[in-house]
Amino acid sequence: MPTTKNETEILAPANLPVIEIVREFDAPRELVYRAHVDPELIVKWLGPRRLTMHVKRHDIVRGGGYEYVHVDTDGTEYQFWGAVHDAREPETITQTFGFEGAGDSASLDKAVFEDLGDGRTRLRITSVVFDMETRDAMLRSGMEEGVNQGYEQLDELLAEQQR
Amino acid sequence: MPTTKNETEILAPANLPVIEIVREFDAPRELVYRAHVDPELIVKWLGPRRLTMHVKRHDIVRGGGYEYVHVDTDGTEYQFWGAVHDAREPETITQTFGFEGAGDSASLDKAVFEDLGDGRTRLRITSVVFDMETRDAMLRSGMEEGVNQGYEQLDELLAEQQR
Repeated sequence: MPTTKNETEILAPANLPVIEIVREFDAPRELVYRAHVDPELIVKWLGPRRLTMHVKRHDIVRGGGYEYVHVDTDGTEYQFWGAVHDAREPETITQTFGFEGAGDSASLDKAVFEDLGDGRTRLRITSVVFDMETRDAMLRSGMEEGVNQGYEQLDELLAEQQR
Repeated sequence: MPTTKNETEILAPANLPVIEIVREFDAPRELVYRAHVDPELIVKWLGPRRLTMHVKRHDIVRGGGYEYVHVDTDGTEYQFWGAVHDAREPETITQTFGFEGAGDSASLDKAVFEDLGDGRTRLRITSVVFDMETRDAMLRSGMEEGVNQGYEQLDELLAEQQR
């Protein structure tokens, strides 16, 4: 397995209730996009390494939705779901994101897959929530670990697919 | 038909890409909520008076979606759609909102139906978008006319239902 050299940037603008995640991948845009919409692929990489992911629904099309459970090593279950506003393969996915137990807080997440032209792809995810307090709580929630480990697992999956 | 006396407030906070709409109705919360989720009712009130609404999909449940066309007097069609993040009758609906022709811009809209305890209801809709420019363009788009006339038509529908 190659050591990953792509860094994940997590940006928090001072004046907007927004989190921006920017990450490059050594794989063509079509592969990176497919790894997000194919339920058999997304279970292999999304989230921290120690969690096991079970997909209940993964219908990433305009008007579709998704639902999954992350199971921790001690059996604790974390339930997530969202609704898909729009998806245009292989360019963009706009969807909501919710976590059971976070009350009514939801985010709207827009993922843009940019073809860097040399078999590489830049993914930029912009997430907006209703207020700065929710945004700051998300930053403090330890999301960084899950995002970083998830993308390292995605690097590994994309490398296998291109071997 | 009674002359409506309830005013619609449209608020734009200085420091968030948010529009807030607050409106009271002389009807119980269950009726106001049903008028939002029943496709046979929503066609009677949503949007400016001169437009005719055709519903293609109106599935206001968690993971559902909606799609409709507003037809102007000259035949021009305006297409709208969204995905439903969550809906808890009769309290809250959180959904996305998109307009064909507005490119990738989308909003996340949270509607809260508050029981005022005397057969009256306060509706508060908070809409968030990704940046201030989009928010300000929405305010300049003439949304006020559609919102005001729509809620006047909803007043009329709710009055008929309670006669």
